[in-house]
Amino acid sequence: MRSHQPRNGVVDTPSPGPRFQPPFHSTVSVQKLRRVNLIMLAFRFGAFCFSLAAAIFMFSNSSGSPSWHEFGAFRFVAVASGIVAAYSLFEVGASVWEIARATTVFPEAIQVWFDFGHDQVFAYMSLSAGAAGAAFARTLRSSGTCTDNNAFCIQSYISIGLGFAGFVFLGLSSLLSGYRVVCFAIYGSRYPL
Amino acid sequence: MRSHQPRNGVVDTPSPGPRFQPPFHSTVSVQKLRRVNLIMLAFRFGAFCFSLAAAIFMFSNSSGSPSWHEFGAFRFVAVASGIVAAYSLFEVGASVWEIARATTVFPEAIQVWFDFGHDQVFAYMSLSAGAAGAAFARTLRSSGTCTDNNAFCIQSYISIGLGFAGFVFLGLSSLLSGYRVVCFAIYGSRYPL
Repeated sequence: MRSHQPRNGVVDTPSPGPRFQPPFHSTVSVQKLRRVNLIMLAFRFGAFCFSLAAAIFMFSNSSGSPSWHEFGAFRFVAVASGIVAAYSLFEVGASVWEIARATTVFPEAIQVWFDFGHDQVFAYMSLSAGAAGAAFARTLRSSGTCTDNNAFCIQSYISIGLGFAGFVFLGLSSLLSGYRVVCFAIYGSRYPL
Repeated sequence: MRSHQPRNGVVDTPSPGPRFQPPFHSTVSVQKLRRVNLIMLAFRFGAFCFSLAAAIFMFSNSSGSPSWHEFGAFRFVAVASGIVAAYSLFEVGASVWEIARATTVFPEAIQVWFDFGHDQVFAYMSLSAGAAGAAFARTLRSSGTCTDNNAFCIQSYISIGLGFAGFVFLGLSSLLSGYRVVCFAIYGSRYPL
């Protein structure tokens, strides 16, 4: 086939391509990235819902004589759940932004480390709040408080259980954000395409 | 220089090298690897000492009328500290083996994931035991138990504090073993040389 080339030096110069070429992504890769982003959004939304419910249940737990703010462990559960709910709401917004605009809110290097660091710290905080709350709830039951005002104890148990569910979703988010940090460290991008 | 080569085809064949050549490591890299291994060993040893002390303080906390095994939160602290101490002792042995023989106890892929997974799980367990114990110790102080038998409460506080110190060392070990997992995933070796 090379013998058909013009041998007199008159060859067509190749036409220059478009100046701003978008990076090439195959359709399969873009679908995969979209799916991972949607799973991340689902985990964030789960953490937000459960933590918000835990915070509301604990903050509203003051109908009878004992109130949540009299006990340090219940204060810890209420405040930790509130913080996790606020953080998860921010991360839901960041995930929606990322799905809609295909870019992160902060620069990518800051975003992946911000997500992973906060996921880890808040997961530890959420778990220790749940453990402290559960230990204190057991003590309340063994003392006479729950026989006097059973609704208070049941509402506390529900709040602590919801807080543990929030921790599970936050832990799953932490796994995925850890995966993004590793991908960013290896490939220079949060998702290897 | 090429003109000095013999042109009549009579050239020396290169002598074959030794059959089992050790992989090349520069002296600086070997020193770095040794230093990381020693830091890891120090963290493991710290986790072992503090967890063992926490377990001993809690298990021996039954001089007076209230005993540690009457309270669920203190049982959790005692058992969790004991488990962390046993695991840390095993890991101290594995670290010493690795420094002495320059190879891991299990195959490398299993070892790095074993270390990281157990570090994470036991760090979460240790922290929740500490949080539950601290919440319960606060309750004991607010009830009349500590005025009746103050030594019991003080010994509990010391045990819980030692457990938290063990958690800090275990968390630091978890950071380093996470680094080893990432290095293994990227370079196929737990330490990039």
